[in-house]
Amino acid sequence: MIVGTEWLIDAAGCEAELLCDVRALQRVFDCLITELDLQVVGEQMWHKFPPPGGVTGLAMLTESHLACHTYPEFQTATINLYCCRERPAWPWAERLKEMLGAREVTVRVHHRVIADEQACETAELSTSSLAGGSW
Amino acid sequence: MIVGTEWLIDAAGCEAELLCDVRALQRVFDCLITELDLQVVGEQMWHKFPPPGGVTGLAMLTESHLACHTYPEFQTATINLYCCRERPAWPWAERLKEMLGAREVTVRVHHRVIADEQACETAELSTSSLAGGSW
Repeated sequence: MIVGTEWLIDAAGCEAELLCDVRALQRVFDCLITELDLQVVGEQMWHKFPPPGGVTGLAMLTESHLACHTYPEFQTATINLYCCRERPAWPWAERLKEMLGAREVTVRVHHRVIADEQACETAELSTSSLAGGSW
Repeated sequence: MIVGTEWLIDAAGCEAELLCDVRALQRVFDCLITELDLQVVGEQMWHKFPPPGGVTGLAMLTESHLACHTYPEFQTATINLYCCRERPAWPWAERLKEMLGAREVTVRVHHRVIADEQACETAELSTSSLAGGSW
């Protein structure tokens, strides 16, 4: 049973200036959040590190989380999107080329899985537990 | 060239009550942060969802980020640790058994990589760019 799906995106050959620009990266988050209809919980966190000026962004989602890290010295950005609900494919390569000038975008998808046997067993435990009102 | 290393941890068979307990999960983060000598940037974000009461935690690190999501209905927790600096192995299975009662812990490690050829090329661009003082 799949409890979550994680996309690991490595975007190489980006424009270094854009990878130091918090607003440019926020625009990538905004586009992704809007187009995949994701819901942000609380405030997004953004931090720009000292030169060469890499940026980290984190957003908690009701669907799980979104993270990015940029390495302007290597013209590279890495993005994680973790969703516990199914989402359509997003055109990562197309959008990251448009928005960050990426020349090469690698997308890896990993499922976070628990064994079906265990899912059945824990679902039973969960039902008992809920029926007992323990949480 | 490796720009970051990501550990994807799936812990099954945990105690459901602990997966609803923000303090219990914060203790896991604290233990990991202390033992791996990680540095938190700003405040950690924690959110408890409506019943069955899963919890999400996010911490921005100078080394990248740490995230956890719990599924008490499936007695499962998933954790991501992304580090852009090398770190020793952490005894995930041992600690998550001690702290969350996990019966089965799966650890997957993924490197975030850019091609060496590109790393050399971008390092040259970076040097030129820094020399020019553009960022």
